[in-house]
Amino acid sequence: MDSATEPRTPASTPAPAQLVELAQQFRVDSVRMAAAAGSGHPTSSMSAAELMAVLLGRHFHYDFERPEHPGNDRFVLSKGHASPLLYAAFKAAGALTDDEMMTFRKHGSRLEGHPTPQRLPWVEVATGSLGQGLPVGVGIALAAARLERDDHRVWVLCGDSELAEGSVWEAAEHAAYEQLDRLTLLVDVNRLGQRGPTRHGHDLSAYARRFAAFGWHTVEVEDGHDIDTLDRAFNEARSTAGQPTVILARTLKGKGVAAAEDQEGLHGKPLPDPEAAIAELGGVRDLHVQVQPPGPTRVLTVAHRGAPDLPHYAPGTHKATRDAYGAALTALGTVRDDVVALDGEVGDSTRTQLFGEEHPERYFECYIAEQQLVATATGMAVRGYLPYAGTFAAFLTRAYDFVRMAAVSGASMVLVGSHAGVGIGEDGPSQMGLEDLAMFRTVHGSTVVYPCDANQTAQLVAELAQQTGIRYLRTTRGDTPVIYTPGERFPVGGSKVLRTHDEDRLTVVAAGATVHEALTAADVLAAYGIRVRVIDLYSVKPVDRATLREAAADTGCLLTVEDHREEGGIGDAVAEVFADGSPPPRLVRLAVRTMPGSATPEEQLHAAGIDAESIEAAARLLVEQAVVA
Amino acid sequence: MDSATEPRTPASTPAPAQLVELAQQFRVDSVRMAAAAGSGHPTSSMSAAELMAVLLGRHFHYDFERPEHPGNDRFVLSKGHASPLLYAAFKAAGALTDDEMMTFRKHGSRLEGHPTPQRLPWVEVATGSLGQGLPVGVGIALAAARLERDDHRVWVLCGDSELAEGSVWEAAEHAAYEQLDRLTLLVDVNRLGQRGPTRHGHDLSAYARRFAAFGWHTVEVEDGHDIDTLDRAFNEARSTAGQPTVILARTLKGKGVAAAEDQEGLHGKPLPDPEAAIAELGGVRDLHVQVQPPGPTRVLTVAHRGAPDLPHYAPGTHKATRDAYGAALTALGTVRDDVVALDGEVGDSTRTQLFGEEHPERYFECYIAEQQLVATATGMAVRGYLPYAGTFAAFLTRAYDFVRMAAVSGASMVLVGSHAGVGIGEDGPSQMGLEDLAMFRTVHGSTVVYPCDANQTAQLVAELAQQTGIRYLRTTRGDTPVIYTPGERFPVGGSKVLRTHDEDRLTVVAAGATVHEALTAADVLAAYGIRVRVIDLYSVKPVDRATLREAAADTGCLLTVEDHREEGGIGDAVAEVFADGSPPPRLVRLAVRTMPGSATPEEQLHAAGIDAESIEAAARLLVEQAVVA
Repeated sequence: MDSATEPRTPASTPAPAQLVELAQQFRVDSVRMAAAAGSGHPTSSMSAAELMAVLLGRHFHYDFERPEHPGNDRFVLSKGHASPLLYAAFKAAGALTDDEMMTFRKHGSRLEGHPTPQRLPWVEVATGSLGQGLPVGVGIALAAARLERDDHRVWVLCGDSELAEGSVWEAAEHAAYEQLDRLTLLVDVNRLGQRGPTRHGHDLSAYARRFAAFGWHTVEVEDGHDIDTLDRAFNEARSTAGQPTVILARTLKGKGVAAAEDQEGLHGKPLPDPEAAIAELGGVRDLHVQVQPPGPTRVLTVAHRGAPDLPHYAPGTHKATRDAYGAALTALGTVRDDVVALDGEVGDSTRTQLFGEEHPERYFECYIAEQQLVATATGMAVRGYLPYAGTFAAFLTRAYDFVRMAAVSGASMVLVGSHAGVGIGEDGPSQMGLEDLAMFRTVHGSTVVYPCDANQTAQLVAELAQQTGIRYLRTTRGDTPVIYTPGERFPVGGSKVLRTHDEDRLTVVAAGATVHEALTAADVLAAYGIRVRVIDLYSVKPVDRATLREAAADTGCLLTVEDHREEGGIGDAVAEVFADGSPPPRLVRLAVRTMPGSATPEEQLHAAGIDAESIEAAARLLVEQAVVA
Repeated sequence: MDSATEPRTPASTPAPAQLVELAQQFRVDSVRMAAAAGSGHPTSSMSAAELMAVLLGRHFHYDFERPEHPGNDRFVLSKGHASPLLYAAFKAAGALTDDEMMTFRKHGSRLEGHPTPQRLPWVEVATGSLGQGLPVGVGIALAAARLERDDHRVWVLCGDSELAEGSVWEAAEHAAYEQLDRLTLLVDVNRLGQRGPTRHGHDLSAYARRFAAFGWHTVEVEDGHDIDTLDRAFNEARSTAGQPTVILARTLKGKGVAAAEDQEGLHGKPLPDPEAAIAELGGVRDLHVQVQPPGPTRVLTVAHRGAPDLPHYAPGTHKATRDAYGAALTALGTVRDDVVALDGEVGDSTRTQLFGEEHPERYFECYIAEQQLVATATGMAVRGYLPYAGTFAAFLTRAYDFVRMAAVSGASMVLVGSHAGVGIGEDGPSQMGLEDLAMFRTVHGSTVVYPCDANQTAQLVAELAQQTGIRYLRTTRGDTPVIYTPGERFPVGGSKVLRTHDEDRLTVVAAGATVHEALTAADVLAAYGIRVRVIDLYSVKPVDRATLREAAADTGCLLTVEDHREEGGIGDAVAEVFADGSPPPRLVRLAVRTMPGSATPEEQLHAAGIDAESIEAAARLLVEQAVVA
């Protein structure tokens, strides 16, 4: 925080009649875009035309030439299918030409069916999976309120159908609790979902009761197509302190075209007769609107004060990787102001809480609401922070759609899943992360790491800060032996060969908890004269192809062992290395194939067939087969 | 519906003083169990002891000797970590001996850390991932109200922390809209979560306002340890018509033991001094409670009237697999009364709507709330119905935790994901299911099928009805060529060899949309004298090992091609076949490796490198490599 930008001259305010015309232009352009594309959602755009016109013309502060300007308001189109409305607004604001606008939904165009920030600089976050706009908007507003303490506002436009998503109510709870009064939710209550009417139709009070109960200020606009009423509602939102505001606007889907207005069966389709519709709407216009400039802002300077002073653990001692995670994250936060930590009400278990004790101003408690946990991370990530968000690995499954969409947004964040695998012991299968590696490996552009000791964990916490996209760190509940020396490096994409010998007959590939089982097995086998190589595959994605290839060439057979389901995890990651058309080595995998119950960690590993004894038995069988073959 | 069971003599009702003692016994037993196990959640059990005592002693109707009795009430312990309370109640009801109770959390015991129906017959559904009990309870209650029209009640006990989960509010909305007045939610408002206080502490009115706004009848119990007040609240719930009731009971975590009562830092741990605690609680008791018997009930007889009259499609025509799904499901519903269909407000797109038009009484609209969609399916599945629940494949990611927990419950259901893959075209990545195969393959005991034509889809809809566990059917948006004759069978675990020749040099393994691309490529290659085998791997899990092994032996190289991310899908399914230690064939995979934008379906397949041209190019390269090698 070291300087302030100059305030700019306010733009002249369009008169109501001009906003009426602007809204009609949005409708016409929406009809034109969908007609040219042969697909799209003009009727869902038309219902919200006045909401957008009043926002853009009177209340939105934004410099379209400087989308990175810290004083800009933020806008999230939660009903991402109404993208024609958004692109029409961008055109009216001078950000797009009419020609480019008309490339909507065509191959190579920046104007996709649902907007994405990867391609359009004025889009904060990818939408299109409903019920995500408000949760991410809460993350953005939380960053503004708690980290930037700035004057800009966050506007989210959503549909009424998506209010059925639970994630909206996680967000409503979070926003009110955090008193995010610079956040405004605009709801386009057009009464019609995709296949028919919503539960509450045009009953604004049904939604108002719910938001009020959750602690929001509510404004009901009986005619959501009336400029003056909307303008008053926006002013009321801007003057409300201490709580977020929802503006519930009663609108008509397809408004302005009699054949489409308030009609079922026209969702997600171009209008049947676009030329007649354009004529009915008063024809093509070319209005431009001068958007209000951003206000003065403090410029946030993010300090990076060298390398973090990571915790050190003495080899030979025992320490849980989750402990090392908490300590290393705290150290990282000490040298980087942009690092924020998020908890899903298990910070004492994941050890994220350690960060909160040292850096309370950058610690965010999201309570038991994993969708909001990841959405908050996304909102902060798109604003330039580096979130580390943690809960039990099992419960990250709750937020998979948010992770998937964060990847579409190109958001950069680290997600941390603790208590992975059957090794948690007595708590049983509901608490065991057994699908997490598969889930995160499949995410586009992701990085997945799974450390086996405390020093390795500490290094990886820092390594992950250097990566991009979605990174996943898997930690273990119980104490594990410290096998690496402090300061040893673990680059993403690498691995460690822990046992090797000229006469290796087989390679055991393990990660996390099973590394220690593999080492025990290797040592027992060595005593019998059977040499096996052991690789610690801490980087599950990207995977260390060179080391695995070398092991394949040297030993001819790779045995993977993982505390995870047999699908999608380490076995698959290793198999993928050899899916390049060259002759692959023999491959065998040990993984969790049953539904575990309660038992001690040791009993669990044994029952799942992934402990040292199981590895030893499998290795003997494979070595004997090779002798026979 | 063809007979009625006889009503049984009501049990005598325990006096309040007896219920006070019963609650103390629950506490003592919870302390004992956790102490013996060395883990567990006694304090979370102790807060709800009176809630459970009043329920069990006065209001619950259940025959513990006949857990399958259709007239039994249903109870769901949403706060599954309070399992000691549940097991203590089972003991008091005579269902468990004290000896078995004390096996809590031990290897081989039925009494797991979190209860599962797979092991205990009186448990309806597995819990332990918070915020799932009410959603599943809604499914159970919905079956009771709409299908059974019976007199039994559904009771859900949850904690206050889990009310932060959005899924609770999806369920609250659904329950009130469906007027589920036989559903009662008991909330143990003990003010403390795992790591500290909840957002609203002991403010019952904060929760009451929210539930009331969602349309629930609310009862606030200021002293949740007072038997008489609780009893009146239960009576009020039972006499409330037209809406579900929530009983919000103010309680103290660790109630009854001064050192634990209302204290932070004692979540999920045995009490520090269990013997002193037991003494303070008045010592060990051995009270038994006679639970009220179930009332008279109509016995539901599920008719199976032979094989369904599946739709037929003429080879050579074009038809979308989603269309065939809707038609086949409707036909299946005609011959099977236990089949129910669930929609996530996209029934017109998934074609589930066709079922609704023919069988409206067994069609359930869940609106845009995918967690509730799967939870409703789980609730109905555990009551013996066979749900087919559908939405876009992409949006099933929203419900992954519910799918995972349904598998822990051993629930039997079919989930259907439409609009899979980049082939949907212009709508862009937010709508493309590209992670679904990985997600479902990893689920324990799952079945995953992905048909390529309409006749195959119809057959698989019927085949899936014969399977157990979680089944996933992946459908395609666009029309695809009909290549199979009507009536041809497609057993789960099978595949179809569509092109084969003595001189096959390579095998292309495809499924769904890419089968047609593979066939085109094979025919082009054949014209150049390059023979490739084509396998339609419609059963992705379990996979047809024999056919793939034969192809490997015959051709030496398998090229997988899929409209899915490269991780966790068909490429991995094929690789897994050869992970048995025998020398594998050469393997290559084509899959979606980029982040798609908007484009036509054809452009998308080409850009992703999974169209006929891409397959042809890859096949040529591989065949030439083999020649060189």
